[in-house]
Amino acid sequence: MPYYIAVYDVNEKREGKMLKLFRRYLTWIQNSVFEGELTHAQFKSLEIEADRLMKDSDGVIFYQLRDERYVDRIALGEEKAERTRFL
Amino acid sequence: MPYYIAVYDVNEKREGKMLKLFRRYLTWIQNSVFEGELTHAQFKSLEIEADRLMKDSDGVIFYQLRDERYVDRIALGEEKAERTRFL
Repeated sequence: MPYYIAVYDVNEKREGKMLKLFRRYLTWIQNSVFEGELTHAQFKSLEIEADRLMKDSDGVIFYQLRDERYVDRIALGEEKAERTRFL
Repeated sequence: MPYYIAVYDVNEKREGKMLKLFRRYLTWIQNSVFEGELTHAQFKSLEIEADRLMKDSDGVIFYQLRDERYVDRIALGEEKAERTRFL
């Protein structure tokens, strides 16, 4: 299944809503960084929901990988991630 | 050459220094997100320099890919990236 890394950069007024939305689909890693497997349909839903919440200069970036195996994560500093998925 | 996606989450006091450091090695994409090819030696230097700047609950995450071809970027919102590298 495709694996996604998502990072958003939104006005603080919308941070709470974005966090809640992204947590429904992905695993929270750090601040505004999320990861996880999504089907194409799930990804499209997340994309549409995120787009609806966004205003002004808000931005979201998704990195799409064919498989989690293609990427290694190297973290410096405190490990903040929780490993639970909310789907 | 390995391809990196880097995201930092640091106290605002250190944001300027982090931005300057990461721009020396990678291309700025959005807020605290950077991308680019680095040799293993370049990556190690960046890792050491970032680690020296970090304090308290600061965090940096690097995603390492064997090749840029393994990843697709999907951006929502304004395209803020500049395409110049500073190496």
